[in-house]
Amino acid sequence: MFKEALQKIVDNVEGGMAGLVMGFDGIAVDAYTREGPNKIDVTTVGMEFSFVLTQVRKAAEVLDMGGVHEIAIKAEKLTIVIRVLNNEYFLALALAPEGNFGKGRYLMRVVAPKLQAEL
Amino acid sequence: MFKEALQKIVDNVEGGMAGLVMGFDGIAVDAYTREGPNKIDVTTVGMEFSFVLTQVRKAAEVLDMGGVHEIAIKAEKLTIVIRVLNNEYFLALALAPEGNFGKGRYLMRVVAPKLQAEL
Repeated sequence: MFKEALQKIVDNVEGGMAGLVMGFDGIAVDAYTREGPNKIDVTTVGMEFSFVLTQVRKAAEVLDMGGVHEIAIKAEKLTIVIRVLNNEYFLALALAPEGNFGKGRYLMRVVAPKLQAEL
Repeated sequence: MFKEALQKIVDNVEGGMAGLVMGFDGIAVDAYTREGPNKIDVTTVGMEFSFVLTQVRKAAEVLDMGGVHEIAIKAEKLTIVIRVLNNEYFLALALAPEGNFGKGRYLMRVVAPKLQAEL
């Protein structure tokens, strides 16, 4: 169920590499990695960023910014888009730097309610 | 010089609230806040996120993602876009949630080289 939803996002975005549903504690619920020459270990990526995400949410709370919906990180070799699903889980998408960031965000937004209903 | 560049970004984006050039140590170089009913303390926002930014850069290094170029955080009441200028400084833009995120990113990208030349 989660893997299908992840695959739907990853395979339909230009430059999509992998998708992940993970708890803020860094424990993955499910992951999908597209086959290809640049396979990444999305669970390790998610674990590193689950800590950062917790820091972002704390900062947002201190600043009275309301709930955090989305975080995007563009680095030289990888773009990560994270969508908060609820208080315990997030959805992450890893894209190639030249990938379609806008379409990735859009698909995550579309799929999120289905994932939320299952969590 | 910095304030003019910041004003150019903030005033030309729908929903632009404030702009900031800051060191990763949390010390502001310059800031500009647009007049209006929802004035925010952008220096405090930057200080909170300078710590988070450092964590993001550490995670990216661990994951061999290359240099971090940009980070965007969308929360219920505020959107923050951060562009890394060099190893010591970053540029931040605070937008209303309904603000023009794409245009803000674009203007930051255009203005960044001028700021980098001065830092």
